[in-house]
Amino acid sequence: MAGEADFIAALRGIARHPAARGLIDDAAVIAPPPGRDLVLTHDALVEGVHYLPSCPPRDVAWKLVAVNVSDLAAKGADPIGALMGYALTGDAGWDAEFVAGLGEACAHFALPLLGGDTVSLPPGAPRVLNLTAIGAAAPGAVPARSGAVAGDRLWVTGAIGDAGLGLRIALGELTGPASLLDAYRRPRPDVALGRLIAPHAHAMADISDGLLIDARRMADASGLAVDIDLDAVPLSREAIALAGSDRRARLAAATAGDDYVLLIAAPATIASICLPESAILVPVGRFAAGAGITLHDGGGAVPLPPRLGYEHGRLP
Amino acid sequence: MAGEADFIAALRGIARHPAARGLIDDAAVIAPPPGRDLVLTHDALVEGVHYLPSCPPRDVAWKLVAVNVSDLAAKGADPIGALMGYALTGDAGWDAEFVAGLGEACAHFALPLLGGDTVSLPPGAPRVLNLTAIGAAAPGAVPARSGAVAGDRLWVTGAIGDAGLGLRIALGELTGPASLLDAYRRPRPDVALGRLIAPHAHAMADISDGLLIDARRMADASGLAVDIDLDAVPLSREAIALAGSDRRARLAAATAGDDYVLLIAAPATIASICLPESAILVPVGRFAAGAGITLHDGGGAVPLPPRLGYEHGRLP
Repeated sequence: MAGEADFIAALRGIARHPAARGLIDDAAVIAPPPGRDLVLTHDALVEGVHYLPSCPPRDVAWKLVAVNVSDLAAKGADPIGALMGYALTGDAGWDAEFVAGLGEACAHFALPLLGGDTVSLPPGAPRVLNLTAIGAAAPGAVPARSGAVAGDRLWVTGAIGDAGLGLRIALGELTGPASLLDAYRRPRPDVALGRLIAPHAHAMADISDGLLIDARRMADASGLAVDIDLDAVPLSREAIALAGSDRRARLAAATAGDDYVLLIAAPATIASICLPESAILVPVGRFAAGAGITLHDGGGAVPLPPRLGYEHGRLP
Repeated sequence: MAGEADFIAALRGIARHPAARGLIDDAAVIAPPPGRDLVLTHDALVEGVHYLPSCPPRDVAWKLVAVNVSDLAAKGADPIGALMGYALTGDAGWDAEFVAGLGEACAHFALPLLGGDTVSLPPGAPRVLNLTAIGAAAPGAVPARSGAVAGDRLWVTGAIGDAGLGLRIALGELTGPASLLDAYRRPRPDVALGRLIAPHAHAMADISDGLLIDARRMADASGLAVDIDLDAVPLSREAIALAGSDRRARLAAATAGDDYVLLIAAPATIASICLPESAILVPVGRFAAGAGITLHDGGGAVPLPPRLGYEHGRLP
């Protein structure tokens, strides 16, 4: 693609929702779903910070969509539309592959692309990709990060640490199965699961930066302490086969981030709600009066690692 | 400010709307105004592309908000919220000034900051600033760019070319009054005027890239030709005093961009709607069957300039 006009022409192949107005207008227009709240989120990816420059552009597009959909899922919201801020850097082949991946991701997550803005960056500047996702949720059933109550269990809805191993595979530090690399490059947040769980959750968020750091944020926002049982953290068979399941492997999994599963504060009774057979809901900790995060496993208290998760540094 | 946490803490001083949830959540939650359509727009500014690196950060923030509000105004929408994608580049003083300007602009345009994402760019990368603005409009009264009808007049709602002269003042090419520099750095799109005019407009957009290029886009989107009377293009007294009002000055004004006034296709009867005394509504052209853009003035047909407006190049 030769430039902005060609890029926008390619986007028109994706943005077929009538609200997108064929991308010839400066704004999209939608009638909001009646009787529902709007959930609004915005996440950006920066080349070399949030993804490796070697990452295939289709996967970068997928991840841009998935990280935003994950925030909607964590609020129990169904996607209703997205606006993208895209930065052209003069690599038409990369842009074309990105658009292909964007189409796949928007189709997978049923997220209509409604508009956005395309800018051109000076040569050599890292790509900066922005997406705003809009969702609709049942009023009064949008759990905050700050709603945990002392006595609540902390739950997760999927394996922790697969994406962290996938990053190490992408970096060439490990050799491992494609499923782990895929977990890193193509996270699949579960919107339907979020919608089912939201009405029963006191607090909900997604795990993007790492189980430990995201759990501590939930505890901090709720004015509570949280204790995590490392032995309870679910690891996938592939992860155990590759990296084991000892304390060190579990700490690595719990601090790696990019899991994009749900993190939930809710009483034990939540285990009895009806979920699809494919879903898992695993208690990994407990909230109590106090502050901060503590860890334990079968061997007793576990000292906190120096790093609880991804804190917006740069990739290696 | 020392980093992302400090920056977000400063933003909390602005994001006081309850939907922003104190910026501790990953998403904002709002109840949409009942019975109204949502208008969604996203515009980005890139340092060195959309603003000069020497531009005061307060004015950059103002412009980021204003260019998005201008798109809402052009759809007859009232602002209801915004999400910002901000890129930290390690200059805490710049960031602090930006936040101050963001607060001024959000207050001026009654645009609540509801959330967003802050990322860190590698040293030396140009700043990339993204904003998504959400507005609410009366259903069925959101004019598209593509709705012009043969016989419609083309109207503008303010002086054309002030910002272009302001840019030349900012570049040191001209010495001129502060009001022109201000027109360039602090555009003031008129939301109330957009709301009044929208129900009467066949097509509406804002003038961001230049009167000629934006008029041609409206004609193209509507499948029509447009002819513009250069002599009718309103110039401010300050602009005339600085640059004159001959054909050359008018062509410069009509291709400079950054005006952020409304561009309207509507029949002559729109002149009779009740507008505030401060508002102007000036016919500058006419749509007809055909394609493309033509110009004339008292001297007859005027050849098209080589450049109809700002086409996403880089600033000088």
